[in-house]
Amino acid sequence: MGSRFFRRTGAGEIVQKLTVKTVKERSLVCEGDRILIAVSGGKDSSVLAWALSSIRPALKINYELSAIHISTDFCECCKKPVLRQRLEEWNIPFTDLFVPVINRLKEGKKMNCYWCSTQRRMELINYAVEKGFNKIALGHHLDDIIETFFMNLCSKGILLAMPVLLKYRKYPVNLIRPLALLEEKQIIACAAEKNILKAACTCPYGQNSERRKIREKIAAFTGNSGDVKRKILNALGAGDIDYLTEN
Amino acid sequence: MGSRFFRRTGAGEIVQKLTVKTVKERSLVCEGDRILIAVSGGKDSSVLAWALSSIRPALKINYELSAIHISTDFCECCKKPVLRQRLEEWNIPFTDLFVPVINRLKEGKKMNCYWCSTQRRMELINYAVEKGFNKIALGHHLDDIIETFFMNLCSKGILLAMPVLLKYRKYPVNLIRPLALLEEKQIIACAAEKNILKAACTCPYGQNSERRKIREKIAAFTGNSGDVKRKILNALGAGDIDYLTEN
Repeated sequence: MGSRFFRRTGAGEIVQKLTVKTVKERSLVCEGDRILIAVSGGKDSSVLAWALSSIRPALKINYELSAIHISTDFCECCKKPVLRQRLEEWNIPFTDLFVPVINRLKEGKKMNCYWCSTQRRMELINYAVEKGFNKIALGHHLDDIIETFFMNLCSKGILLAMPVLLKYRKYPVNLIRPLALLEEKQIIACAAEKNILKAACTCPYGQNSERRKIREKIAAFTGNSGDVKRKILNALGAGDIDYLTEN
Repeated sequence: MGSRFFRRTGAGEIVQKLTVKTVKERSLVCEGDRILIAVSGGKDSSVLAWALSSIRPALKINYELSAIHISTDFCECCKKPVLRQRLEEWNIPFTDLFVPVINRLKEGKKMNCYWCSTQRRMELINYAVEKGFNKIALGHHLDDIIETFFMNLCSKGILLAMPVLLKYRKYPVNLIRPLALLEEKQIIACAAEKNILKAACTCPYGQNSERRKIREKIAAFTGNSGDVKRKILNALGAGDIDYLTEN
């Protein structure tokens, strides 16, 4: 038989397959769930929104999807119309929430990624609880989770990563990361294939340089093998502590 | 002031200082302990025996030390007399125990490091229990512990290293690793300075090649920084599961 009998699996199908696997194995989505997707407009959260809307037939579960974008006073995101249009195509209602992060900075304090994330995460949780959503979906992927694990291990000396499913003790809402089994390169390939363009503005405070360095070291350490990275994810198990809000 | 007023800390002092720190912080040695040191004749366990005998004044605790060497039917260790003499100089009684490892192999089974270790570890525990020792001291150092952690993480997908203090559930004996804060290079420097020569024969089954590969990767990952490695050790906390006997 010639190779024409074999079809190469598309990038979108890989994303769908691994998202369904994560959702099923970790029981991330249940009948009647009201899921709020946090979308920045970047590739990760956009692919997450597409994946969650397109795997409905495979999951055979009824759930509601809605998306929220948090704008800040240093990044209003000029590409929101593109994001809104894309989400409408996938039948996902879109809300824009403004959080004045810089205004909240106490005098003499400098902006940093951790503080800004905490502000936005708290607003996200408050909004979800207020509007009756019982799940918040975040677009973190396998590489994000592994990087956080190694940064905590080597810099802070603690065993802590981003949990795939986090049941908040303080709030009636769970946090889910359905892209946990996907490598960033698989998400990039899917975004390109499905024409899910990156709409997010670049944060003026720039990329976390510590994260960039650890990324290169992890690539060397794991030989960039998805299998090794997924083994590490499995080792992290059901770690239910959230890095931002439960410390 | 000239530099002649400052004395460089010797390699032996570094070993003593970090061993005392580990023993105190992890409560490894208590008043009246009867400690059995497992000695191969190699640099690690020899330095361990020297350190445990020489830090008595710093610890201000009364404890008994004894050493045991396990010979196998594939490695009888031709250098035992040197080992015995060295231990006598440190006032540590020496016992030689013969374990016929190859003879115990079931037909068709091949020798491997894990199986051989388990055989020797069980004999060690049985001997300690029989003779009334309540602690077994092993010469594993920081690099051994970090390597085991990363091998388990990347190959097996489990969070498991060598505990610094292991309280066996099945046996009335604890296992301690007083060199846990020491890097291999610090032990090598101490062995050279104190003329603690390597007396062990080389195992005919050779070095574990997986361990050698992970060693190089860890060096690149941690920048060979003792501080980073000790942070990782701290992250592993009081993990009380033993790799060889409690699975």
